[in-house]
Amino acid sequence: MTDSYEPTERTIPTRSRHRASYDRALVHSILDEAYVCHLGFVRDGAPVVLPTLYGRIGDRLYVHGSTGSRPLRMAGTAGTAGTAGTGDEAPGLPVCLTVTHVDGLVLARSAFHHSINYRSVVVHGTAHQVTDPEELRTALDALVDHVVPGRSYDSRPANAKELAATAVLRLDLEEVSAKVRTGGPNDEPEDATLPHWSGVVPVRRRYGTPIPADDLDPALALPDYLSVI
Amino acid sequence: MTDSYEPTERTIPTRSRHRASYDRALVHSILDEAYVCHLGFVRDGAPVVLPTLYGRIGDRLYVHGSTGSRPLRMAGTAGTAGTAGTGDEAPGLPVCLTVTHVDGLVLARSAFHHSINYRSVVVHGTAHQVTDPEELRTALDALVDHVVPGRSYDSRPANAKELAATAVLRLDLEEVSAKVRTGGPNDEPEDATLPHWSGVVPVRRRYGTPIPADDLDPALALPDYLSVI
Repeated sequence: MTDSYEPTERTIPTRSRHRASYDRALVHSILDEAYVCHLGFVRDGAPVVLPTLYGRIGDRLYVHGSTGSRPLRMAGTAGTAGTAGTGDEAPGLPVCLTVTHVDGLVLARSAFHHSINYRSVVVHGTAHQVTDPEELRTALDALVDHVVPGRSYDSRPANAKELAATAVLRLDLEEVSAKVRTGGPNDEPEDATLPHWSGVVPVRRRYGTPIPADDLDPALALPDYLSVI
Repeated sequence: MTDSYEPTERTIPTRSRHRASYDRALVHSILDEAYVCHLGFVRDGAPVVLPTLYGRIGDRLYVHGSTGSRPLRMAGTAGTAGTAGTGDEAPGLPVCLTVTHVDGLVLARSAFHHSINYRSVVVHGTAHQVTDPEELRTALDALVDHVVPGRSYDSRPANAKELAATAVLRLDLEEVSAKVRTGGPNDEPEDATLPHWSGVVPVRRRYGTPIPADDLDPALALPDYLSVI
């Protein structure tokens, strides 16, 4: 495994190429810091973008949903691309999976140079429904552990009925890029003396105090893995 | 103007319909609390999802970008849907614009019932390039003010060169839905006595201390509109 993904025509941005990266470690770190991606697919010729949870195992991403949900059903019945010789039963669903962190509001002296500090990952590919029972269980654990690391060991695993109601799609990390903006505003030199405050307002994610379920046994202490997130 | 958007086949979810809403005020409040949307469009038959800033004026959303960026160029040259009689010069770009807030991690006793508390809005429609100079300026102000309310009055407006380099797309809020999950885990009754902590970990957005630009005049105080975000 190399340290970088291979750029493709789709993953080379038309704008701000200096912000693009194909570094595998960077891509993984951006993916692992979020829980929710925005999954795009095409339905009746039109784009659809839905937020959904995901997990990662190495260079494979997993998203899940009810077997009755649209993208899950479509992955089993539709699709157009790249499945010859993969051994998959269904043709898969062409998707674009995007993850974005907002790190700061960039206020420039000029309206034009206002911006956002962000880190994003865009994955292009074909999602395939996971049919192997072992991979399905591993993927579901990864989905739970992606939100709260260690949680899959401290919850009841899915039973046969729940497994039957859950569909999981796999998307391989092959055609993928990261894009990152950091730093302060890029004002024009001639704007430097304008009387407008300029700089960056940091934006962060913050966790509140966990709220126990109404019927939780008060003797059950907050687990250690929750005290560190 | 009615208080609700009309549901359509595309905006009625296949799953968790009880979480869907078409309430105009709710949709606007979700949109106004975020700065970054995920904009989906179709390129060469495949989905593309990119994070981008947006603004709102009433029932119109605006996204902007360089005149050289892909979706902006495509909106001026491609598209397939719904433009007859609108008076627009270009056919527009079919898009799906999605905004999501993560409000909490929902930890159930069972892996299956793990979830996320969230508020999302999904907008379907055709984006049209703004050509009217007055609407263009108003939209650009709305984009800046969407990130920091009041900021457009405290920055240099775009000059002719900057205006020429900026393209703005308009997307009308017509086919739109919100989806909201709140509350604690929905565990199965038979799982209530399992020895796993369950409940919700709140997730919030937090602003850090603003960082002045390196070359900012120290005499320029932090504006009031930044002390309240």
